[in-house]
Amino acid sequence: MPRQSDSREEMIKAGRRLYSVRGYARTAFSDVLAESGAPRGSVYFHFPGGKDEFAGEVVAAHTRSAQARLARLAATCSTPQDLLVAYLEAARDHAVATEYREGCPIGAVILESAQASPELQASAGKAMASSIALFAGLLVERGAGEADAHRWATAAVTAFEGALIVSRALGDPTPFDSLIDSLRHAAA
Amino acid sequence: MPRQSDSREEMIKAGRRLYSVRGYARTAFSDVLAESGAPRGSVYFHFPGGKDEFAGEVVAAHTRSAQARLARLAATCSTPQDLLVAYLEAARDHAVATEYREGCPIGAVILESAQASPELQASAGKAMASSIALFAGLLVERGAGEADAHRWATAAVTAFEGALIVSRALGDPTPFDSLIDSLRHAAA
Repeated sequence: MPRQSDSREEMIKAGRRLYSVRGYARTAFSDVLAESGAPRGSVYFHFPGGKDEFAGEVVAAHTRSAQARLARLAATCSTPQDLLVAYLEAARDHAVATEYREGCPIGAVILESAQASPELQASAGKAMASSIALFAGLLVERGAGEADAHRWATAAVTAFEGALIVSRALGDPTPFDSLIDSLRHAAA
Repeated sequence: MPRQSDSREEMIKAGRRLYSVRGYARTAFSDVLAESGAPRGSVYFHFPGGKDEFAGEVVAAHTRSAQARLARLAATCSTPQDLLVAYLEAARDHAVATEYREGCPIGAVILESAQASPELQASAGKAMASSIALFAGLLVERGAGEADAHRWATAAVTAFEGALIVSRALGDPTPFDSLIDSLRHAAA
């Protein structure tokens, strides 16, 4: 049996996987326990606020992880165009490798929590805004002007969210490729 | 009380509205009955196959309506670039007017039905592919080459799906504007 502190982390990791595959509304605590192997008592021990508190932690953990990955990727890119293309190419390669079965947990929460929990939706919205701001800062560091950087970062994150849906629908990577092409032109 | 044939249409219209606002998983037949005013017996009279059959009809009706709207818009556009920009501007204006509360019912079904109903997900995927094919044909009619037309149509539909999520997250239209700018460059 995992230690208490481990079971909290394992549940959050399981939440990230489950939200990405089946969405937020369809993920119950029973699924999270089955996927993580955490003991049943963990739910109210670690997340006394229930499903919304858990979802908030999943959003926060996923955002930290995605932002760290973006910063590592940026370290390998010397121009704004390089970083925009590398970001969407990495996302495309992951989508192909996972056979288009994974969506974005943050996008799922934004789409599915509007009526059930406006506060949760707002916190997922803030997480997405902070990722766009980080992305824009990395583009500025690589020579973009402030206005271009914000526009391109917004375009890249928007392209990512859309391509996860449409590549899942089509079963092919053309949604990523088509927007890589568009952003390459825009940032040329 | 509406006539039987009306109640079927009213239920499907209500399904389109509910899927767009709250997603697919959270929309129960009880919500559809409340929203449409259809009598309780309508569910199994009109949709003996249950929730999946109903969702398939919602996807089909929404696709017909979206494709008809796209064809009408195309009649006012003389170049590929005009049509790409007009499509995303119309979507942006609708998102602003509805305060970012509406998503795409097709996108919701694609994200939320993967595990619950792979057949439904596949039919939503086919609907999206047929809209991209129609869009590409309209771009070819306005002078685009086949390969460009398919790439730009895929980019536009992908931008639309992503911008619905990210503008909902941010509460502003910049996701639409940023990709209108990218596509304008790509199709210049």
